[in-house]
Amino acid sequence: MKLNYKIIFHFLGLLILFNGGFMLLSTLVSFLYNDGVTNNLSIAAIITLALGSLAMLFTRKHNKEMNKREGYIVVAFGWIIMALTGSLPYVVTGSIPNFTNAFFETMSGYTTTGASILNDIEAMPKGILFWRSLTHWIGGMGIIVLAIAILPLLGIGGMQMFAAEAPGPSADKLHPRITDTAKRLWLIYFGYTAAETLLLNVAGMSFFDAINHALCTVSTGGFSTKNASVAHWNGQPIIQYIIILFMFLAGTNFVLSYFAFKGKVQKVLHDEEFKLYFRFVAIFTIIAAVLIYFRADVSVSSIDHPMVWGEGESAFRHALFQVLAIVTTTGFVTADYTLWTPFLVVFFFGLMFLGGSAGSTSGGVKVVRHLLLIKNGFLEFKRALHPSAILPVRYNMKAISGDIVFNILGFFILYMLSFIIGALVFSMFELDFASAIGLSASSLGNVGPALGDFGPVNNYAALPPLAQWWASFLMLIGRLELFTVLVLFTPFFWRNR
Amino acid sequence: MKLNYKIIFHFLGLLILFNGGFMLLSTLVSFLYNDGVTNNLSIAAIITLALGSLAMLFTRKHNKEMNKREGYIVVAFGWIIMALTGSLPYVVTGSIPNFTNAFFETMSGYTTTGASILNDIEAMPKGILFWRSLTHWIGGMGIIVLAIAILPLLGIGGMQMFAAEAPGPSADKLHPRITDTAKRLWLIYFGYTAAETLLLNVAGMSFFDAINHALCTVSTGGFSTKNASVAHWNGQPIIQYIIILFMFLAGTNFVLSYFAFKGKVQKVLHDEEFKLYFRFVAIFTIIAAVLIYFRADVSVSSIDHPMVWGEGESAFRHALFQVLAIVTTTGFVTADYTLWTPFLVVFFFGLMFLGGSAGSTSGGVKVVRHLLLIKNGFLEFKRALHPSAILPVRYNMKAISGDIVFNILGFFILYMLSFIIGALVFSMFELDFASAIGLSASSLGNVGPALGDFGPVNNYAALPPLAQWWASFLMLIGRLELFTVLVLFTPFFWRNR
Ligand SMILES: [K+]
Ligand SMILES: [K+]
Repeated sequence: MKLNYKIIFHFLGLLILFNGGFMLLSTLVSFLYNDGVTNNLSIAAIITLALGSLAMLFTRKHNKEMNKREGYIVVAFGWIIMALTGSLPYVVTGSIPNFTNAFFETMSGYTTTGASILNDIEAMPKGILFWRSLTHWIGGMGIIVLAIAILPLLGIGGMQMFAAEAPGPSADKLHPRITDTAKRLWLIYFGYTAAETLLLNVAGMSFFDAINHALCTVSTGGFSTKNASVAHWNGQPIIQYIIILFMFLAGTNFVLSYFAFKGKVQKVLHDEEFKLYFRFVAIFTIIAAVLIYFRADVSVSSIDHPMVWGEGESAFRHALFQVLAIVTTTGFVTADYTLWTPFLVVFFFGLMFLGGSAGSTSGGVKVVRHLLLIKNGFLEFKRALHPSAILPVRYNMKAISGDIVFNILGFFILYMLSFIIGALVFSMFELDFASAIGLSASSLGNVGPALGDFGPVNNYAALPPLAQWWASFLMLIGRLELFTVLVLFTPFFWRNR
Repeated sequence: MKLNYKIIFHFLGLLILFNGGFMLLSTLVSFLYNDGVTNNLSIAAIITLALGSLAMLFTRKHNKEMNKREGYIVVAFGWIIMALTGSLPYVVTGSIPNFTNAFFETMSGYTTTGASILNDIEAMPKGILFWRSLTHWIGGMGIIVLAIAILPLLGIGGMQMFAAEAPGPSADKLHPRITDTAKRLWLIYFGYTAAETLLLNVAGMSFFDAINHALCTVSTGGFSTKNASVAHWNGQPIIQYIIILFMFLAGTNFVLSYFAFKGKVQKVLHDEEFKLYFRFVAIFTIIAAVLIYFRADVSVSSIDHPMVWGEGESAFRHALFQVLAIVTTTGFVTADYTLWTPFLVVFFFGLMFLGGSAGSTSGGVKVVRHLLLIKNGFLEFKRALHPSAILPVRYNMKAISGDIVFNILGFFILYMLSFIIGALVFSMFELDFASAIGLSASSLGNVGPALGDFGPVNNYAALPPLAQWWASFLMLIGRLELFTVLVLFTPFFWRNR
């Protein structure tokens, strides 16, 4: 079957239009704060809106039929076209004059990675900072649709497991309409953002900082309006606990949040992925807190650490904050964890591969995949001893088909392969071992801060241009669960049959 | 069924006796070179022989029935008991007075890892050096039986794929007799050792150095009789090319060597694993050689690099040597590759996960597993586009059952998990990032040299005692394809039903 290019361009046009709408919102913010870039921002918005309208106009007479292949193309090129048009506000206002840098910052935004090439964030116009946070928030919205409505249909990396849970289209063909489920989950996403903004504002953040941090928390993005990230509020523990709460919620499957609001709390508490996610966070926090308290000296850092509520609380808070920031792949920073102890460096590096829950906005491998891998691993031992026994992997009381376990195993291996190739390419730019390895894990997992020269207190400005493109690529494939992008590189994908 | 402990002890007794026999051989070498430790070595041999005889004597009336569980125990505890009794020569002669050090050196020997805690190898008595090389050679013999006769029966990590190739017992129960196949392969192993000894001797090595390096090459062990390892002969390229040849052969499936000697050369040239192994070595050598020639300065090293045949040949030789040393997990050193370029550090780190061929004496993941993972990965993409198509993985013209692919995927994930836990534990000893990561990859893959403070020009003497035990554990589980040892830690293994 020939590819239906028209419908692809139609959807891409819709996405660009949508992007332009959000740019208008940033223009409004720019106007309200009178930051001097309002005219340029409106130009970027108009260009984007015009591009989107033209694409939709030229493709309005399209065949409605859409198959898997068109789905893959819309998803992968959708993210790319968002990043391309999303770079306009930076370039047109001159905030980030270099296109490579602007594209990197935007891709880091839409993939909710939060790696930044900005040296002085606080000097940026407010409209641009707001746009920067919005790219995270838009990316997060995209991820929710992707996880709930698209990936299950494409049958990627075991995510078909969740197809039954989410009410929506169940046919093999892609449903062009955004499902009801996605709308409900977006409502929760929006509600969390509003609630966090309010709480942060009440706790003492300015309204502007509050809304920006809320946009970047619920999307597990991690951009901050301050140069020191959330460490800027190290003297205000309440603010950090609010962010901790919302990082935890953002790393939870949004479908579970929906159940909780519907009063089905038992369903949440019995969800195996949620239980393991909670345990992971609890155990890793205890380990980190004990080590910080007894072994590490937090004052050896370029970051201020006023211990307003005592040393014990400080150790606990920074442990919990950084564990959640890495596990949920938000990437906010309250301390330079690479200076704590050598063990904690490897520890946080390992956590970059964990990821939050499926159906959340977090990146990485995801807890459910680890859960099924662990369960399957145990069963492999049993199978080796009793080859004739039939031992299916069970998840939430249901037997999981061998195909899904197979997909998850395949996903994990492809993830590790991408990681090692990622690190190899970075090391070509004369980066040291820890930096190359850390950059690859962080980009692929959409975490943000890495190790070495690109650790929590550094930014990505020193990364060579070609390496920025490579990081953008890794962020993209990591965000889109690898297969969605990589399948486009196989020759048989493009074969019309 | 209850465990048949008697037959387990009977086999362990046999192994100890076998070990004692080889100690007598070392005693003879000690006597011939009049190195002053002949008496002490003979005491170690007599203790070992007595222990083995007693164990066999007390268990001579054993039930002949042996099942999988007994098989696992014999394999895992066999390696441990060999390392325990094998430490005696070091301790009794006072060459390595500390037991932890002696056990580490011996486990490093039997697992063919080649990591050493000796600061001055050249000061050791000749009988002890010979014993040290013999531990590699005995370990290599063990690996051949394991790969050809035992792992396929236990159904571990996809190795059942080779069960059909090796003529021998095909029942589900373990055959206590070493098969004919193993004997034929041992003959090749012995032949390669003799041939390499002769060639190295003719090329200018002393007979003692020649036989020791031959024992350590064919077993892909990597112990050397010189402090500088094979870099000692950097001025004699011929010697290094001979070692290169035998590293390559030792990393090839010994069954293929057998076919070659039987004149079935076509069977070798059409073997998919062999082809990929050859290509890997060729491609990686070209990459490394080009980088060394154009970008690296080999003279920045504590190792002498006389370029007797010119700079080009030197770059090619060191590239080929180090690629083969890491891919085949031999771990010999001719240059400090961690000083070449940042890319080559990550490159050689990545190669530690490759491993040689299945059915060879090399460690690591093995080429055939990578091959099937790559093939399955491609098919996963096709399956995602065409879910109804049945697309089996093919290897050497045969369709591989889904179970075997599943086993291999499971093996790979367990390997990566062991690697990350391995690195986490090492980092508890305040080792830096590269050292902890490198030690874990090197120990698990039985390579020998690691990165950072335990790189190619360092030894393991600075590793804290507890970390030496941890490294020993990783070497053991890596050598025995993980499952064989780790299954002993599952509660259901010990349940009698
Ligand atoms: K992030
Ligand atoms: K080795």
